[in-house]
Amino acid sequence: MILIDNFKEAFGTSSNNEGIKNGYILLEGDKIEKIGSINDEDYGIIKDREDVEIIDATGMLVLPGLINTHTHAGMNLLRGYADDYKLHTWLTEKIWPFESRMNEEDIYWGTKLAIIEMIKNGVTTFNDMYFATDRVIDAVRESGIRADLGYGLIEENDGEKGLEESVRLIEMYDGYLNNRVKINLAPHSPYTCSEDYLKEVMKIADKYNSMIHIHVAETKEEVDDLVNDSGKTPVQYLDEIGLFNYHTLAAHGVHLSDNDIKILAENNVHISHNPASNMKLGSGIIRLKELLDAGINVSLGTDGVASNNGLDLIHDVRLASYLQKAVNNDPTVIPLNNILEIVTTNGAKALGNAEIGELKEGKKADVILINTHNKPAYTPDYNSLSNIFYAGSGRDVDTVIIDGRLIMENRELKTLDEDKVYDEVANRADRLSE
Amino acid sequence: MILIDNFKEAFGTSSNNEGIKNGYILLEGDKIEKIGSINDEDYGIIKDREDVEIIDATGMLVLPGLINTHTHAGMNLLRGYADDYKLHTWLTEKIWPFESRMNEEDIYWGTKLAIIEMIKNGVTTFNDMYFATDRVIDAVRESGIRADLGYGLIEENDGEKGLEESVRLIEMYDGYLNNRVKINLAPHSPYTCSEDYLKEVMKIADKYNSMIHIHVAETKEEVDDLVNDSGKTPVQYLDEIGLFNYHTLAAHGVHLSDNDIKILAENNVHISHNPASNMKLGSGIIRLKELLDAGINVSLGTDGVASNNGLDLIHDVRLASYLQKAVNNDPTVIPLNNILEIVTTNGAKALGNAEIGELKEGKKADVILINTHNKPAYTPDYNSLSNIFYAGSGRDVDTVIIDGRLIMENRELKTLDEDKVYDEVANRADRLSE
Repeated sequence: MILIDNFKEAFGTSSNNEGIKNGYILLEGDKIEKIGSINDEDYGIIKDREDVEIIDATGMLVLPGLINTHTHAGMNLLRGYADDYKLHTWLTEKIWPFESRMNEEDIYWGTKLAIIEMIKNGVTTFNDMYFATDRVIDAVRESGIRADLGYGLIEENDGEKGLEESVRLIEMYDGYLNNRVKINLAPHSPYTCSEDYLKEVMKIADKYNSMIHIHVAETKEEVDDLVNDSGKTPVQYLDEIGLFNYHTLAAHGVHLSDNDIKILAENNVHISHNPASNMKLGSGIIRLKELLDAGINVSLGTDGVASNNGLDLIHDVRLASYLQKAVNNDPTVIPLNNILEIVTTNGAKALGNAEIGELKEGKKADVILINTHNKPAYTPDYNSLSNIFYAGSGRDVDTVIIDGRLIMENRELKTLDEDKVYDEVANRADRLSE
Repeated sequence: MILIDNFKEAFGTSSNNEGIKNGYILLEGDKIEKIGSINDEDYGIIKDREDVEIIDATGMLVLPGLINTHTHAGMNLLRGYADDYKLHTWLTEKIWPFESRMNEEDIYWGTKLAIIEMIKNGVTTFNDMYFATDRVIDAVRESGIRADLGYGLIEENDGEKGLEESVRLIEMYDGYLNNRVKINLAPHSPYTCSEDYLKEVMKIADKYNSMIHIHVAETKEEVDDLVNDSGKTPVQYLDEIGLFNYHTLAAHGVHLSDNDIKILAENNVHISHNPASNMKLGSGIIRLKELLDAGINVSLGTDGVASNNGLDLIHDVRLASYLQKAVNNDPTVIPLNNILEIVTTNGAKALGNAEIGELKEGKKADVILINTHNKPAYTPDYNSLSNIFYAGSGRDVDTVIIDGRLIMENRELKTLDEDKVYDEVANRADRLSE
């Protein structure tokens, strides 16, 4: 058992985002066993138990592990490789040629780098769409992180084999490692997968009760193209072919009409908003306020670092909030309670995982501790949640526990050899960038 | 003498922003004496000198100290005190009542907190508009930071006395501490200072050759009000009364017409852009691309933390860049070379200080070192400048040298007792927020 002892304040413990002060959290196996106050009678008894490993959380702030709902982790190999290019040039002259040189081992090491970066920023679950999934799973297993993984289906590249690969992954790995690994279906987009192909994907979703992770309406061009070809927006089109009958997580959702938003709401489609990527690529500005007002569940993703260029969800959710305040000329939109939900409970809903995203008894023990010591951003302390999300950084995360296991303490990873990963990635980057 | 030994790459050394790799920087007194390569013949000789204090910069990235051109440092006491409020409510019900309870000692401690936070984020110069300037100077002296300070003139509050105070400060402190302290004139805004009052300010500027720091066109309301009253925008008005004949740094400049931009360019008015504050308060979105295209010098400010809520210029300049890429639907705007200039050389120009903002022989020894060790954001390393500004954080700054003096090393401040400042601020915050 692990006792998170004498924390300063814990958030994400109830729906109204009031923090619990001066308390403790007891973890048993992979679950949260008990959350209480250090004034409780039980506290002394628990602390004295011989089978309890104590983590001193004095002065620390506690959150549920953050949930990153849209990544291409292997793309960590491309950080800083091509900045400030127009989208078409960026993709065709830089990103795609680079990716074509990447092999499965490259993806494995790039993914390890991404996982290190996510853990060091308090991310305990990520939802990845990429390739070499067996090797990605190796990186997930070794690191101790939680992951939802889908093999990225591009019909022209993968054809029938991609569908078979998806089925193989589901049968082999869905629920693997005490359910730390879940497999979903990841058709890349409506413009890289035909209607027939998407219907094959839906058949697999039917059989295995899988969720579908797909890019939707990231750029104006992609929306205009489909409207010109078919008279339908991507959202209308996916709705009409029946995709939204399945649990769908649509990445981006930048260019949406009022009618699109209505369709998404009616079908309980989840949106993974990726503010840093959308802004850096100049893709457009999501109608986040309208989406939330329509009751749509919006979670947060970093996207790959080629277009971010980091994996700090605390940074990115602040960006999401500030951008909406700016474009709506309204400082009250996307306030702190939205911010916390977007990176925790909304992420859990987006992934259809009722076991994560909150600090509650019976939930999975995915917990992060923020060390406020020697960090000016946490003084004064009128509102710790404000200090975390409006002044803090993923770099302030001190301790990370995932599935009941201590993964990082005092910013030192317990599971992966950081230096080895940096060295391997640097060597591979040298080769790949030539 | 200080030798910054064996750095990985240094930026801000030339106008094209190419980095110098594997080099050294020798500091003599308050100046940069020499920048060279570790392959230079001199290098061994310098390293062996007995009077040289060596700072091991192996693996580190070097930048000129960052320049924050618009602050209200004393407002660090208000971090997180009032978030997500409409501007009018925020000011009248929260900020102003709080500030009315603050005394000179509160401002002193709030400023010390701000200075700690700036140093820990690599800021070596700040331009402050606030009150209790003698006590602000005490904080500047003790900390070792460089500061341009103006007593914030609000005609209704300060009247003639404010002008006298400004003159007293100039006479007593301009050039103080080896020119680490400079005093400017800080009339708050055209809507809190009358034409006659601003003309008195200009007379002082005439006499002392002082620069003027003033809020201009931060909100749409303030512009509309003046246009309704006088038919002139704030920029037209200030131009017509002759304010722009003086070196002027206009903070914000959010709501500007094409004609305003023309006037600003013709008069070499400098703009301090404050992206985080403008976004968080929903004040509007600056026309940054148009300003830069017009040849206007734009530097960066954090504003006070009540509306930011931090003092991390690396974070904020990324925000500025991403926001412009987003609103212009163009990933090529505000690229890396702009980004570096905005927080270094443009800041120096904005403050009329030719001695800072660059790593060049003869310039002031204001230097910061970024430690990339154990930080995933710096791998791979195709482009270190990209990693600093697109993936990095002020928290990655390891070492800060200001005016040739080692102020922070390994993130430990040499000049101020951090814990004491946090405790004092916390106690004062308790009293002030009641």
